[in-house]
Amino acid sequence: MFSKDTYAGRRKALKEKVGCGLLLFLGNDEVGMNYADNTYHFRQDSTFLYYFGLSYAGLNAVIDIDNDREIIFGDELTIDDIVWMGSQPTLHEKAAMVGVADVRPSADLEKYLASAGKCGQNIGYLPLYRAAHSLKLLRLLGVKPGDEKPSIPMIRAIVDMRNHKTAEEIAEIERACDVTADMHIAAIRMLRPGMRECEVSARIQEVAEAAGMRLSFPTIATVNGQTLHNHYHGNIAKSGQMLLVDAGAETEMGYAGDMSSTICVDPKFTARQKEIYDIQVASHLAAVGALKPGVPFKDVYELSCRVVCDGLKQLGIMKGDPAEAVEAGAHAMFYPCGLGHMMGLDVHDMENLGEVWVGYDGQPKSTQFGRKSLRLARPLEPGFVHTIEPGIYFIPELIDLWRGQHKFEDFINYDEVEKWKDFSGLRNEEDYLITETGARRLGKKIPLTTEEVEAMR
Amino acid sequence: MFSKDTYAGRRKALKEKVGCGLLLFLGNDEVGMNYADNTYHFRQDSTFLYYFGLSYAGLNAVIDIDNDREIIFGDELTIDDIVWMGSQPTLHEKAAMVGVADVRPSADLEKYLASAGKCGQNIGYLPLYRAAHSLKLLRLLGVKPGDEKPSIPMIRAIVDMRNHKTAEEIAEIERACDVTADMHIAAIRMLRPGMRECEVSARIQEVAEAAGMRLSFPTIATVNGQTLHNHYHGNIAKSGQMLLVDAGAETEMGYAGDMSSTICVDPKFTARQKEIYDIQVASHLAAVGALKPGVPFKDVYELSCRVVCDGLKQLGIMKGDPAEAVEAGAHAMFYPCGLGHMMGLDVHDMENLGEVWVGYDGQPKSTQFGRKSLRLARPLEPGFVHTIEPGIYFIPELIDLWRGQHKFEDFINYDEVEKWKDFSGLRNEEDYLITETGARRLGKKIPLTTEEVEAMR
Repeated sequence: MFSKDTYAGRRKALKEKVGCGLLLFLGNDEVGMNYADNTYHFRQDSTFLYYFGLSYAGLNAVIDIDNDREIIFGDELTIDDIVWMGSQPTLHEKAAMVGVADVRPSADLEKYLASAGKCGQNIGYLPLYRAAHSLKLLRLLGVKPGDEKPSIPMIRAIVDMRNHKTAEEIAEIERACDVTADMHIAAIRMLRPGMRECEVSARIQEVAEAAGMRLSFPTIATVNGQTLHNHYHGNIAKSGQMLLVDAGAETEMGYAGDMSSTICVDPKFTARQKEIYDIQVASHLAAVGALKPGVPFKDVYELSCRVVCDGLKQLGIMKGDPAEAVEAGAHAMFYPCGLGHMMGLDVHDMENLGEVWVGYDGQPKSTQFGRKSLRLARPLEPGFVHTIEPGIYFIPELIDLWRGQHKFEDFINYDEVEKWKDFSGLRNEEDYLITETGARRLGKKIPLTTEEVEAMR
Repeated sequence: MFSKDTYAGRRKALKEKVGCGLLLFLGNDEVGMNYADNTYHFRQDSTFLYYFGLSYAGLNAVIDIDNDREIIFGDELTIDDIVWMGSQPTLHEKAAMVGVADVRPSADLEKYLASAGKCGQNIGYLPLYRAAHSLKLLRLLGVKPGDEKPSIPMIRAIVDMRNHKTAEEIAEIERACDVTADMHIAAIRMLRPGMRECEVSARIQEVAEAAGMRLSFPTIATVNGQTLHNHYHGNIAKSGQMLLVDAGAETEMGYAGDMSSTICVDPKFTARQKEIYDIQVASHLAAVGALKPGVPFKDVYELSCRVVCDGLKQLGIMKGDPAEAVEAGAHAMFYPCGLGHMMGLDVHDMENLGEVWVGYDGQPKSTQFGRKSLRLARPLEPGFVHTIEPGIYFIPELIDLWRGQHKFEDFINYDEVEKWKDFSGLRNEEDYLITETGARRLGKKIPLTTEEVEAMR
C-alpha cells in the first residue's frame, strides 16, 4: 500500500476536479466458484484501490464533496471471525492507513444515500462490470439492472488522474514488469517439443505466485497464435510450431505487467517463420521509435500497420500501395487487433470506464474492422503507460470469409495467402512509459527478435 | 465428459424421482475480475455439469417433466466470435454430446418459463450462490433478490443422486486424488527453512495445472496452521516451524480431490511437535478404522474427538473423562472443526444445496461450538466419498476467550495450555470411498505420520 498521503491526495484532487455532488465507490465482494464459500481469489475494484487502497471484500465508500466527507462503509470482524481467521487490524485501523477516519457500518450506507438523495445531491457512480454491483445499486439506489446511468464527469475526472502515472506508481508497475519478464524467460527456457501448453502456462503462473504476485489476466500459451482469444492449454507443442505466450503479473497492490513472446518449439525458427517474424519486429521497432509526448497513438498504429503491409508486400502476400492498403483496412486481414492499450491498476487500464474516455479522450472511434480494435488513439502524454504489441496472424476463418466476399482484392494476393494459411500467428509485446522527451521500456528486457529468442533456448 | 448415456440416464432418474413440474438449471456465466472481459477462470455450476455436462458460459437448461422435454438454452457463436476464438463445435453439436437435441436461443427461456407459469406448472430451482443467479431469477421469474424459494424436492432428489458416486465418477475422483497427492508430495519435498509460503503454494498450483487440472479450492499453505481460514501466503517458513498444506486438484470435468499435510520445516519434527502429531494420527487412524456402511459418520467423529481428548489428557493439557469432555464440547478448544465432508463435483460436495440435506439427510444439526462445524453426520452408504481430516489446533484467541469465560475448567488445564499456545496447529487429510464392506482410500498415499513425512524430506 502507498502512504496515506497518496490516497488522501488523490481524493482531494478528485473532489476538486468533480466539484460537487456525492461519489459512490462500490468495492468488490467475494464470488463463489461453485458454492458461496469456495471463492475465486479476491480482486478489489481498481478505482476503489486507487482512492481507498484497501483490498478487502465487503467495503464501499463515499466521497461526499458537498459535505466534505470521506467515508468507508464496512463491518468489523466478529470474535467468531477472529477465531477462524486470526487477529488482524480493525477496519478503523485499516482505514486510518489510507487516511480515512470516518468508518461506518455497511448497513448505514443505504440511509446515507437516501438522505443525500432527499437533499437533492447528485449521486455519481461508475459503470458496473459485476452482477453484484447491479444488485447493490438496486438495493442502495433503486436503480433497475440495465437502467444504470454512470456519471460522466466522475468517469472523466478519474480517467484523467489514473491515466497519468506518478513516480511511485511507475515503480510499482515496473516491479510487475520485472516479474512478467521472468515469466516469459522461464517459458522461453523450458519449451521443448512434446510439451503440453498447460505445462508452460503452469510454470508461468508459478513464477508470478512464487514472487508473491498473481496473474494480471488469464495466460495465453498456445500453438494456435492465430486464435486471438485463446485460453485453451490442452495442445502438445510440436516440432516446427511456434508457441505464442501472452502473460503478465499483478503486484499485491494491483498494478499490472503485460508482455508477449512468440517462441520456436525447436531450438531455431524456420526460414519461413523468420520471414514473418522479422516483419513483426520491424513494425514493433518502428512503433517504439515513434513514441513521444504529443504524438497521437493512432499515428503510431498507422505506422506499424504500414510496416506490416510493406513487409507482406515484399513476400507477395499483399500488393499495391501499403499506405492505401492500411487506409482501406486491408491490413486487418493479418493485423486485426490494436497496437497497444493503457496499463496500470488494470492490464487494460480502466476498460470498465470506457475506451472512448481512456484511449480516445471522448473522440469517436473508427468502426472499421481492425481499426475499431485499437484501444488507444489519443495524443501521448508524459506519465502514460501502455503496451506495444503489433502482431501478424493468418486466421483461416477470416481468410475464407474475406476471400468469399472478394474483399480487398486490390491489396491481398489470396492465392499467395493460401500458402501461409497454416502459419498460425505471432506477436511480441513490451510495456512503455511516456516520458517528458520520449519513451522508456518498463521492466527487464525479454527477447524480441528471432536471434534473441534462439539465444535463450 | 462422460458418454451421453450417463447424462441422459441421470436426467431420466431425476425426472422419476421428482415426478412432476419443471426444473430450471441456471448455468454459470463469466465473472469479470476488474472489468468485464478480464475474467476469472470459468467454473460451471456443478449440478449443471452433473445433468448437462457442458462447461461453457451462457447456458441454462430446463427439464420439463410434465411435457417430457429437456432443453438447453444458449446462443451459437457468431462469425465474429469464430474469427477471434477459432472454429469449434456448434452448441447443437455440444448438446448432442450430452444427449440433448432440443437447443433454443437464450432469449426464449423467459417466454418458456412464462408459459409454464401460466399453465400452473411448478418451477423448481436450486439455492443461489452468485449475484448473477439472483439477477437471472429476477429477470426470468420476477423473484426479488432475497425472496428466492428453492425447491426442496428438487434439492433432495439431486442430493440423493450426487451423494452416491458411480464407478466412472469414482475413477474420475481418483484421478483428481492422484494429482492432489502429487501436489502434496511436491510441497513435502521442496520445503526448506527460509522459503516463503507463496513459493510452496505456487509450486502446488503448478503441479495441478501442468497436469491439465485446476485447484479445487484456494490452497492453504501456512506456518499458522491454527488459523483455520487462512489464505495468506506471505510468511517465511522458519526453522522450528511446521507448514500446514491443504490443497486439492479438480479434473477438467470438475471432480475434486482434497488432502492436507503438515510438514516440518526442518528435516525432522521436534519431540514436542511429535507429541501432538501422534495424537492427531491416532485420531485419524481410529476414524478410518471405523468407516463402513451403516455407521453414522457422527459416531466416527465422536470417536476421533475422544482419541484427541485422551491424548491431550496424557500430556496434561486436558483432564477428566475424555468421553464426558467430548459430550460437553470441551474438545472443540483444540478440534473446533468437523472430521470430514462429502467430496465430488464440489470439494465440499453440494455445499450450495444445504448441509442439512447432504450430510444430515434432513436431520437437525447440533448448535454446539465445534460439533456444529461437522458437515457430515448421516449413516454411511456405499458410494459416499468423503474426507477424513481431524486436526489439533492451539488458537490463541480462542484460548484467551474461553479462559476468560472460565469455560470447561473441569476438562481443560489452562495453565498447561498456556505452554502450548504458540504451537500452531496440524491436520492430515485423506479421501475415502465407502464400499459395500468398508472403505477404500482414494488416490496415491501421501505421508501421514511424522516418520513418513521425515522419510520424504
